[in-house]
Amino acid sequence: MSTGTDISFFFSPKSIAIVGASPRRGKPSHVIVESLKRIGYPGVTYLVNPNYEYIDGSRCYRSLSEIQDDIDVAIFVLPASIVIEIMERTDNVKGAIIVSAGFKETGSAGTKLEEELKGIGERKGIRIIGPNCMGIYDTVSRIDTYFTPEERVRRPKRGGLSILTQSGSFAEMIVDEMASEGIGVARIVSYGNRVDVGETDCLNFLMDDEATKVIVLYMESVDDGRRFVDVAARCTKKKPVVAVKVGKREAGVHAARSHTGAICGRYEIYRAAFKKAGIIEVDGYEGLKDACKVLNTYDLVEGNRVLIVTDGGGVGVSMADACEDLGLDVSKLTEETRKRLSAKLPGFFATGNPIDLTGSVTDEDYVIALEEGLRDAFDVVIVTILWGPPKLTEKLADKLKEARDKYQKPILICSPSSGFTRSMAKRFEDKGMPVFFTPESAARAAAVLAGHRM
Amino acid sequence: MSTGTDISFFFSPKSIAIVGASPRRGKPSHVIVESLKRIGYPGVTYLVNPNYEYIDGSRCYRSLSEIQDDIDVAIFVLPASIVIEIMERTDNVKGAIIVSAGFKETGSAGTKLEEELKGIGERKGIRIIGPNCMGIYDTVSRIDTYFTPEERVRRPKRGGLSILTQSGSFAEMIVDEMASEGIGVARIVSYGNRVDVGETDCLNFLMDDEATKVIVLYMESVDDGRRFVDVAARCTKKKPVVAVKVGKREAGVHAARSHTGAICGRYEIYRAAFKKAGIIEVDGYEGLKDACKVLNTYDLVEGNRVLIVTDGGGVGVSMADACEDLGLDVSKLTEETRKRLSAKLPGFFATGNPIDLTGSVTDEDYVIALEEGLRDAFDVVIVTILWGPPKLTEKLADKLKEARDKYQKPILICSPSSGFTRSMAKRFEDKGMPVFFTPESAARAAAVLAGHRM
Repeated sequence: MSTGTDISFFFSPKSIAIVGASPRRGKPSHVIVESLKRIGYPGVTYLVNPNYEYIDGSRCYRSLSEIQDDIDVAIFVLPASIVIEIMERTDNVKGAIIVSAGFKETGSAGTKLEEELKGIGERKGIRIIGPNCMGIYDTVSRIDTYFTPEERVRRPKRGGLSILTQSGSFAEMIVDEMASEGIGVARIVSYGNRVDVGETDCLNFLMDDEATKVIVLYMESVDDGRRFVDVAARCTKKKPVVAVKVGKREAGVHAARSHTGAICGRYEIYRAAFKKAGIIEVDGYEGLKDACKVLNTYDLVEGNRVLIVTDGGGVGVSMADACEDLGLDVSKLTEETRKRLSAKLPGFFATGNPIDLTGSVTDEDYVIALEEGLRDAFDVVIVTILWGPPKLTEKLADKLKEARDKYQKPILICSPSSGFTRSMAKRFEDKGMPVFFTPESAARAAAVLAGHRM
Repeated sequence: MSTGTDISFFFSPKSIAIVGASPRRGKPSHVIVESLKRIGYPGVTYLVNPNYEYIDGSRCYRSLSEIQDDIDVAIFVLPASIVIEIMERTDNVKGAIIVSAGFKETGSAGTKLEEELKGIGERKGIRIIGPNCMGIYDTVSRIDTYFTPEERVRRPKRGGLSILTQSGSFAEMIVDEMASEGIGVARIVSYGNRVDVGETDCLNFLMDDEATKVIVLYMESVDDGRRFVDVAARCTKKKPVVAVKVGKREAGVHAARSHTGAICGRYEIYRAAFKKAGIIEVDGYEGLKDACKVLNTYDLVEGNRVLIVTDGGGVGVSMADACEDLGLDVSKLTEETRKRLSAKLPGFFATGNPIDLTGSVTDEDYVIALEEGLRDAFDVVIVTILWGPPKLTEKLADKLKEARDKYQKPILICSPSSGFTRSMAKRFEDKGMPVFFTPESAARAAAVLAGHRM
């Protein structure tokens, strides 16, 4: 019996079976069992392997059918041909996560196996995530099917970001990066070759998922173009959806084919589809990271007008360039606002946009710049802080947070360079103010908030 | 007497005077004296201020003329109008570094002061760096005129990179960043409003400076377009010159004007000039950072063919995209090479370009990929390493270094994500292999090595 498009049971399984469980530390199936324990999966875990009676003190079943229970999710960590055999004999499984590689991505023999797998799933009504994937990392239902140990790939805390990806390596990269940035995530799904469940079913689920505030897509190809645009368009009415399309050009397209067997299609078609569905497109890994960081804190804004405040002229110029390169509007201040600023700030400060507070800056000057600058119509503020100026103090974090809360505008901090700067950056991030370390990165984040309207 | 275009004395001064010296810790002039001590400036330092007889136990002179010595470099840290007064009365100074702001960047009154300053310099044959600048950070002659304390802005070690910049804040950012990246520098000159000495004179000096291996330019505007192209063209025949042009569009152009009084001119003209002079243009701060990092280790290459080796399919696809976006040639491997690779590696590894070693990768697989892949004609190699795969060990750094030395091709490491990855990255960097943390960053670095040929 097919469960149709409903895949919610993958995100609230009462029981999980690990097919191909192993007592050997470091083996993928062993890591998965450990990951489930560590995250505190609250359901029942069954181990399956005919070669063992017990693994680490837990009973090990000879087969899925020996388990006198319905299995919500069976995780397969076995060679491709054995996966097919077992799937063929299985009758008590609702969904399968097939971690194993060796399918379509390896050529014609693998493609045949993948077709068999697809047929079995359809015939038996077993929904499939994978093959050739990492599966699910879910802080809400506490599921972690990732086979990379936490010592190597850290796991992020709970938060509102959900991420969908064909690439398993991308899933690894992004969980580690989110953990290190302190960004919280809800559900991260890696579906690899996507024999069945793909971004459209997942979007359909995440759209009404209360735990998910923002959705990020890493796409090599699309499962079902028309349905994707339809579902995504409904989704973007409820929460922001950001996407990066990889495999844009020849080499990338070839690489994607041997990676997840994806046929990438023409990039221009994707761009048009994203636009139609209201998806915010970002460029590459850097764009995606910046989007995750900024959407972890701020909601989208209505317009694309950016106010830049800086204490370094050069970095202000770079910031203006970077913003304009992305189509953001770095409008001048009104004459009235310039006059107010000039009355309150030293004469050699520049009251344009950027407002340049120079190396003579004090904490309070930033507050004045925001107070007066935001009388004009801006949607986003980028505050650049170089920590060379001697009168700046650590109290600036509190002052800017106050200003943000008072004026209700998203403030992005940009603090290039490292050392002292990073220690100061931490103070801002601890107060929930995202800090970016290059002008380009801050500009990309601002463009995401503006929905990348050009 | 004008010294013509020779400014080499700025980089080997026998005597330095600090005009406006102060006993107050944290004051710019005090920081400069401390900076000179810390870096171990080997010449004579004179303090000048009529209000003190001694500062921190050193004699303080009432005026420059009271010093019975020729001063190679006088550093002015005083209000703009006083700078003019003193310059007018000075006869024993060869060169001046005028740190003070309050000149052209502040409007018409300041512009008048700056014109006066220019006139005095020309009449008296005093060469001027500045005003509104940081001056010189020079690890070769051990000079540091930067007025930001090291606790806030760290100073890099000695190396072969020389950097020229109008922006003082950019100078601060880049010294701190280079220090944190462990990249060595030779001479970093910030000349601010550039009343006299600018990039062309500096290029002319650095061209034959043995300590300088690579030159990096941060330009808002150019001092003398025709002469610049002429000097730069001779310079690029001797060593790589990389430039970023900021103030590209409207807001940036306006900001640059109020920053260093620069008239930016049309960006397209700069592009054409860079091309004509053989300068490698990079985009923004990120591009410049990547260029510094890669040129700290590698020489330019002849062609633009990139071999990508990866253990993550998704990041391989992203890398191919990023390379192609920058005009690099991600050519396929020859059939013969693919066959050799297939014979030596597991069947499910992808032998395209990228060569995808998958999560089953071992250290040795990377070596095989390089050994066989480099039988084909490639100019640069990007090796992506995700550290999730359990069989990878820390020995990989040694193996890749060996391969690099054996095949004599620049190998750029790309290891996105953090935590464990960063600790592994350190091993590569300690062996002189540059590591980049995003696909885009590695691709930008490769494009720089290829001279950004499209």
